Amino acid sequence: MTQTQPAAILTFRDEVAALKRQRILDAAADLFYSHGYSNTTLDAVGEQLGFSKAFVYTNYGSKQQLLAEICTHGVTGVHEEVRHALDLGLETRPTLTVLMDRYVNAVLEHQKYIAVYVREEKSLLPEDAVRVSGLRRAFFATIADFIAKGTAEGVFQTTDPHMAALTLGGAVTWTTFWYRDTGRLDRKTIAREITRNANRMLGVSPGGGA
Amino acid sequence: MTQTQPAAILTFRDEVAALKRQRILDAAADLFYSHGYSNTTLDAVGEQLGFSKAFVYTNYGSKQQLLAEICTHGVTGVHEEVRHALDLGLETRPTLTVLMDRYVNAVLEHQKYIAVYVREEKSLLPEDAVRVSGLRRAFFATIADFIAKGTAEGVFQTTDPHMAALTLGGAVTWTTFWYRDTGRLDRKTIAREITRNANRMLGVSPGGGA
Repeated sequence: MTQTQPAAILTFRDEVAALKRQRILDAAADLFYSHGYSNTTLDAVGEQLGFSKAFVYTNYGSKQQLLAEICTHGVTGVHEEVRHALDLGLETRPTLTVLMDRYVNAVLEHQKYIAVYVREEKSLLPEDAVRVSGLRRAFFATIADFIAKGTAEGVFQTTDPHMAALTLGGAVTWTTFWYRDTGRLDRKTIAREITRNANRMLGVSPGGGA
Repeated sequence: MTQTQPAAILTFRDEVAALKRQRILDAAADLFYSHGYSNTTLDAVGEQLGFSKAFVYTNYGSKQQLLAEICTHGVTGVHEEVRHALDLGLETRPTLTVLMDRYVNAVLEHQKYIAVYVREEKSLLPEDAVRVSGLRRAFFATIADFIAKGTAEGVFQTTDPHMAALTLGGAVTWTTFWYRDTGRLDRKTIAREITRNANRMLGVSPGGGA
């Protein structure tokens, strides 16, 4: 019965393995976020899930590898959402609104991942720090290129597209440091307000992108 | 000759003591910023200055106290600059330009202090974390109150003054994570661009505040 494993079973096993890896990543991001990287052990990550430390080690060779995965997952997760907005093929004005809305929501969904990256960059191995920093720069270049294109078209008003990208990026990233599930503003409102601010900042009349 | 110490000598001694404390703070901020808080010892802080560890301990009882001082110094240093801009008594539009320009420059001057605060908040003692968080909230309230006042006057256009303050605050704070002395943009240019973006974001025509 186990001589030849049907593809469906292998796929299911892969799915379970991927799910377990994601659970480990989520638990680690949660603990690094709440207690700090240096105060968290791989044992604690396993305990939180009812997994053994050995199981965590089998999936992630070291705490530093786990941290590198968290940082990578945060940046690429947000970049994919922004890329998706750009690939919708809408005109520049509505693209700005969709892009900013998705960007803010993606950052808030990955809040712990992003906050851990910003805080713990110095704890990454040098080669991981360089690699993730490259991913981050590529992400900001995507935003800057979009703003430069909109400026060239005369849709946006800005004197330095890259500085505009960093200004908006800072506004969005900063939400990971003050947003609380129990706070006055819910995610939808935060995304709407930052999107409005981005429209005004780029000289697009509010509502123009809707 | 030493029986009664003239006030001038005492004052000079106080100045020297204050200078030494500031040197320790700068060196610690530098090391925490470059290597991370958990990877830095008080010995290393003393060594960097040619001071003994005992001397560092005499001035700051523990590494955690030193961290709390760094966080406090960063937030209050920036708040004082912004407060100064508000106290000039200018009209609302030029106040925005002066305030943003001073705000960005103050954050870049305190780059290491602010970055260490953002990264190492979880390493603060709980009572210090609460106290510094209160200082940070008071600072953002100062910005939000100014934006609310300008909105009530009809000078600024914004739907949520507090969100506008957080948007601008995020943009400015984020500079501490990407600004490099050797980068393409110097401090003056960064301050000018973010100030322009703030003016547009609040619906003030560029140059209107100059």
